[in-house]
Amino acid sequence: MSSNIQIDAAFDSGNIEILSIDGATARLAIRHDNESEFKQWFHFRVSGMAGREIELKIDRLKDSAYPLGWPDYNARVSEDREYWGTAASTYDAEESDGVLTIRYTPSTDIAYFAYFAPYSMERHHDLVAECAASEGVTYQRLGETLDGQPLDYLTFGEGDTQVWLTGRQHPGETQAEWWMEGALECLTDPSDSVARALRQKCTFHVVPNCNPDGSRRGHLRTNACGANLNREWENPTAERSPEVLAIRNKMDETGVDFAMDVHGDEAIPAVFLAGYEGIPDLTEEHYAGFTTYQDILNRRTPDFQTAKGYPKATPGKANLTMCTTQIAHRFRCPAMTLEMPYKDNDDLPDPEQNWSPERCKVLGRDCLAALLEFLETA
Amino acid sequence: MSSNIQIDAAFDSGNIEILSIDGATARLAIRHDNESEFKQWFHFRVSGMAGREIELKIDRLKDSAYPLGWPDYNARVSEDREYWGTAASTYDAEESDGVLTIRYTPSTDIAYFAYFAPYSMERHHDLVAECAASEGVTYQRLGETLDGQPLDYLTFGEGDTQVWLTGRQHPGETQAEWWMEGALECLTDPSDSVARALRQKCTFHVVPNCNPDGSRRGHLRTNACGANLNREWENPTAERSPEVLAIRNKMDETGVDFAMDVHGDEAIPAVFLAGYEGIPDLTEEHYAGFTTYQDILNRRTPDFQTAKGYPKATPGKANLTMCTTQIAHRFRCPAMTLEMPYKDNDDLPDPEQNWSPERCKVLGRDCLAALLEFLETA
Amino acid sequence: MSSNIQIDAAFDSGNIEILSIDGATARLAIRHDNESEFKQWFHFRVSGMAGREIELKIDRLKDSAYPLGWPDYNARVSEDREYWGTAASTYDAEESDGVLTIRYTPSTDIAYFAYFAPYSMERHHDLVAECAASEGVTYQRLGETLDGQPLDYLTFGEGDTQVWLTGRQHPGETQAEWWMEGALECLTDPSDSVARALRQKCTFHVVPNCNPDGSRRGHLRTNACGANLNREWENPTAERSPEVLAIRNKMDETGVDFAMDVHGDEAIPAVFLAGYEGIPDLTEEHYAGFTTYQDILNRRTPDFQTAKGYPKATPGKANLTMCTTQIAHRFRCPAMTLEMPYKDNDDLPDPEQNWSPERCKVLGRDCLAALLEFLETA
Amino acid sequence: MSSNIQIDAAFDSGNIEILSIDGATARLAIRHDNESEFKQWFHFRVSGMAGREIELKIDRLKDSAYPLGWPDYNARVSEDREYWGTAASTYDAEESDGVLTIRYTPSTDIAYFAYFAPYSMERHHDLVAECAASEGVTYQRLGETLDGQPLDYLTFGEGDTQVWLTGRQHPGETQAEWWMEGALECLTDPSDSVARALRQKCTFHVVPNCNPDGSRRGHLRTNACGANLNREWENPTAERSPEVLAIRNKMDETGVDFAMDVHGDEAIPAVFLAGYEGIPDLTEEHYAGFTTYQDILNRRTPDFQTAKGYPKATPGKANLTMCTTQIAHRFRCPAMTLEMPYKDNDDLPDPEQNWSPERCKVLGRDCLAALLEFLETA
Ligand SMILES: [Ca+2]
Ligand SMILES: [Ca+2]
Ligand SMILES: [Ca+2]
Ligand SMILES: [Ca+2]
Repeated sequence: MSSNIQIDAAFDSGNIEILSIDGATARLAIRHDNESEFKQWFHFRVSGMAGREIELKIDRLKDSAYPLGWPDYNARVSEDREYWGTAASTYDAEESDGVLTIRYTPSTDIAYFAYFAPYSMERHHDLVAECAASEGVTYQRLGETLDGQPLDYLTFGEGDTQVWLTGRQHPGETQAEWWMEGALECLTDPSDSVARALRQKCTFHVVPNCNPDGSRRGHLRTNACGANLNREWENPTAERSPEVLAIRNKMDETGVDFAMDVHGDEAIPAVFLAGYEGIPDLTEEHYAGFTTYQDILNRRTPDFQTAKGYPKATPGKANLTMCTTQIAHRFRCPAMTLEMPYKDNDDLPDPEQNWSPERCKVLGRDCLAALLEFLETA
Repeated sequence: MSSNIQIDAAFDSGNIEILSIDGATARLAIRHDNESEFKQWFHFRVSGMAGREIELKIDRLKDSAYPLGWPDYNARVSEDREYWGTAASTYDAEESDGVLTIRYTPSTDIAYFAYFAPYSMERHHDLVAECAASEGVTYQRLGETLDGQPLDYLTFGEGDTQVWLTGRQHPGETQAEWWMEGALECLTDPSDSVARALRQKCTFHVVPNCNPDGSRRGHLRTNACGANLNREWENPTAERSPEVLAIRNKMDETGVDFAMDVHGDEAIPAVFLAGYEGIPDLTEEHYAGFTTYQDILNRRTPDFQTAKGYPKATPGKANLTMCTTQIAHRFRCPAMTLEMPYKDNDDLPDPEQNWSPERCKVLGRDCLAALLEFLETA
Repeated sequence: MSSNIQIDAAFDSGNIEILSIDGATARLAIRHDNESEFKQWFHFRVSGMAGREIELKIDRLKDSAYPLGWPDYNARVSEDREYWGTAASTYDAEESDGVLTIRYTPSTDIAYFAYFAPYSMERHHDLVAECAASEGVTYQRLGETLDGQPLDYLTFGEGDTQVWLTGRQHPGETQAEWWMEGALECLTDPSDSVARALRQKCTFHVVPNCNPDGSRRGHLRTNACGANLNREWENPTAERSPEVLAIRNKMDETGVDFAMDVHGDEAIPAVFLAGYEGIPDLTEEHYAGFTTYQDILNRRTPDFQTAKGYPKATPGKANLTMCTTQIAHRFRCPAMTLEMPYKDNDDLPDPEQNWSPERCKVLGRDCLAALLEFLETA
Repeated sequence: MSSNIQIDAAFDSGNIEILSIDGATARLAIRHDNESEFKQWFHFRVSGMAGREIELKIDRLKDSAYPLGWPDYNARVSEDREYWGTAASTYDAEESDGVLTIRYTPSTDIAYFAYFAPYSMERHHDLVAECAASEGVTYQRLGETLDGQPLDYLTFGEGDTQVWLTGRQHPGETQAEWWMEGALECLTDPSDSVARALRQKCTFHVVPNCNPDGSRRGHLRTNACGANLNREWENPTAERSPEVLAIRNKMDETGVDFAMDVHGDEAIPAVFLAGYEGIPDLTEEHYAGFTTYQDILNRRTPDFQTAKGYPKATPGKANLTMCTTQIAHRFRCPAMTLEMPYKDNDDLPDPEQNWSPERCKVLGRDCLAALLEFLETA
């Protein structure tokens, strides 16, 4: 059979451009985020392979947001839209300005490929509705995005410690919302001892998806107008970053005692935290909040480590436009960015899935259990 | 508490315009389909009621597509996005050019309202992927919509009788895709005797959603450019009705021996069939194909009846732009339009749900079982 | 590896005797029902095969209850205790007084083998509790078995027609309780139009398992004391057949307008009904109740047929100790025995499962839909 | 309505004796374990209450195994056989030699009551079959009980540290098998980081149910012949304690580096560990294995504590007939008895369920995560 495969991306978080298709081979490109230079997220469906091995070449990756993300990376693939495994991928920086070649032989006529397992807005609305219906949970609509979507916000718990959890400022970092799903399942489970104790000690403030517009549009890093939300925390505006403005205003109202902002990292094959070394007037005691939590998490789960990560900022040189630094500075509390890989966790590799939605969810519960230990020992 | 409720519709198949909100009361309007006068489908989320009864007034319904659809109709509501029940609704034709008033007290902070239980494109893609992965099923991408979505088409069966099932030409008639889900679950179930026998006798051709653009946009009756697809079957064009063009071309290729096109009807509180009385050169024998099937279905399921329905066309006066008449004429075969209610089935009423997705699915299997009896007795 | 496989049957409905084991080969025998000559049901677990093909020889089958049941029969096997497939089996009437040889290579360390997919008392209690919790269903404990188990009885419906459904008088005919599960799922489904209409017309009386003691003990045909309950309907006694006594007494109280008693048949590879031709004073009109229903069912489902079945009794020569004949005689109503195969349904064969629990359940709904058509046309 | 309720216990792990029934009130007694004085476990079904409040009085509890277990205890009740909540219970030591009075108004016609949520042998076989089918798990039949049931044993992992987990020596302590289900779900989950790391470091040896005969018979503490298996570890015999003999022999073969034996405690409203203080020649280093693990678990989960527990044995005075002491002595390794309450965990109370199967399962995963931290810091 010599017919051409077909490729589609006109659905939630879809992103691909077709350059050419020849039989079971396609040359593809990634669209930039709207009004932005960023590009790295892809998500598309292939059909019509009829038993053939397909070869997909994603082109022009030299000018992608993180060229270092492609070596040792494997695309994710799903035939049933539930289980996401790896499709063997190789990166050649020399070919056509950088090409990722994906090879895969599906067992059915349809296969979905993505940079990481997608988390659709429909699933987001399922998650929010389910949590809102859980005992003791209050839903609030914090604000509205430029595309007119609501910014969903959940609160619960009876304690005085104000804990903020935010995810998916960068919409293509879907790891963040899988983590949120795991964390929220834990926190709304009446049988989970960690949840039971945390809800006595804390009030939780959770924004499971800070960037619905970028999510639906299939962006990597920006909202509808091309703003990188994690660079808007110093001066958020209603015109450019209403998402951040709404969240930061609510934080000013509730106060913040502990904050975690959840992300994915393109290049580093590990889970790690980034802190707030460079903020003004940082005291040892203040910084110990970060390092103590980090040590506890490191001790508690083998999927977390401290050897790999970002370089630390020079004292006083923090970029206060970012969520973690702005919160740490503004509220004098521990704040942190959690990063999960697109690649595998190299310390505990899984050839079939690499880092996966399932592992994001397990990590969600482990981070909360670490928070409880942190609060009890603090 | 005197804060205002919030209303959102920026999601798959969302449709509402907010005129005003005052506390737990809102005045709303339905958007017209794009480039069209049709309006009747609504779908939106209400939040922030905090235990209060909400009152929603949908205004200006005198110029909706089917004003007769509103008396004796109840809006559908869901808090968990799975179970859709009724929200008590009343229609006053005199108030503000026709107002539907919906009252409801949710038990949680979030409730979704819709004209009928929605069927999202995400669920559509789940359905297509699951069927495509079933033994013996072939997926084909028949064509592309104006919004760039694929037209999904499934074939299976080893028999010579060519059976075509099409649904949701009118995208707001979501009953059609729930029916398709029930029919496809039956036909891909290796333990279902009806499916087993039908797949020996027939080759099935199924387009579960003929109008993905209207579905995603929250339209009642038209595609992205405002075309009512069920008036395009005589002269479909790539510019205005590529969906119909692709399907009719494939039908010309495969031939058609039996066709059912699945719809919802706004006004009539019953399930019924419409046929092809007025097509040119209709013979008694040809028309008997329709009446025989109708009699069998009538005998087999109490959710179907023949007393209520559309007036029959005068001989020779059929509108050949419609799917059923065009197919009956073109292929000299039995063809029919299946209509399910938005209201209840008044012969077998269910106050909690009225006509429901679950009943659509049961009817799907019953229609197939009737087809088998029809083929065996023909 | 030369270690011996192990065989266990000390669990609900377990039945096997080990004659010898040598590596992955075993010679086995079936235990007789307690105080009875009947033997045919087997159910046991094999472990320790470690990747080897196992060969199981069930011996001495010449004196089993139905030697004609073994040719063209395949044992059922399950590794996950949910899906029951076939294990290739051959019968040699000449070898050791009749040997069934089963060969199978499991993919795991554990495999269960049975004459037909088992239906445990735990699952029975789940079914009864779930039905008892359904809207409008009343539970009654009709009586007690010799082993002290309750005889569970469910009633529901608002109509005047008294419909009795009884199953599993013969405990090794587990088809009957799978059928009951399908029938009860239909009848308690508020979205099923057939159930909705039937519950308006009828009052249902359901005993999903008439023989709990034989079920738990792993019997083929008798209760704890060796009584074949389907030969006890003329003179049931508290000592020997308290199950039948309790049911017949309740029938005398409620009256019976239609009765179906559900069974499995060892020899015939088809689904069929047996009626009451030989009862005294049978009128044409009375017998037409049976034949009309049979015709309707025959027309409605391809898994039912009328060509194969039992020879009909000579007029006046009916055995009134059986449920169907006794009820037809006693209540002058249509009554019937539904028989499902242990072999396959040869008209619509399924090599992977042969006749299966899933098909029993589908047939349950189809028999009820036929009942509705019967009542509407009567 | 003045009819009597009915009470049944002739099912897996059923245990009750009916003294008298009067309307919706019953006087009951608990049967002793076979050939034993122990009695405390009860499990029975009540039916026929028809909307009435039922009052159940369990009599003669002064001579139950643990009279201190009844004050502040609430019976467990389930109507759907899945969710087990509390039924308000009070104990009067003065009335009729000690009476527990249970009051409850079910919403359906059937309710099951038990000392703790039952774990049936059918569910046990489901668990074993599912684990045996998991990647990398080996099933072995360690031996046979006096009632002829198999002793099921699962092994997996590639590491050198030999970890033994045993549960339900005392069959009425069903908490143990719920814990096992949670632990095995964790250990067979390829996405769980704790499982992934533990399976690299350890070989696991798991006997999820050490006493199938007592389980099926509805015993509290003994096997079929009345032996308390946790007093048989010094001199197990084929005649009296084949279960312990088989396990201890296998331990001698594999060696033991860490052992946890899982139990329930009748009197203490908390989760705690018991160790091996009194064994001969105990060194500080050896005992530190226990205290270090205990400290880690204490730090990691709020459902565990160290304030309440058993008194410690005097040096050299350990009872070496018990599993934990015998293993600690025999293999010079850390060994421990994990005790979970029948009452609530008073530090983190749950009025709706008290201590529950769900919490047992969460604790299973937490104990394993503590084991990983223990092995990494050791
Ligand atoms: Ca990021
Ligand atoms: Ca229509
Ligand atoms: Ca029989
Ligand atoms: Ca104990």
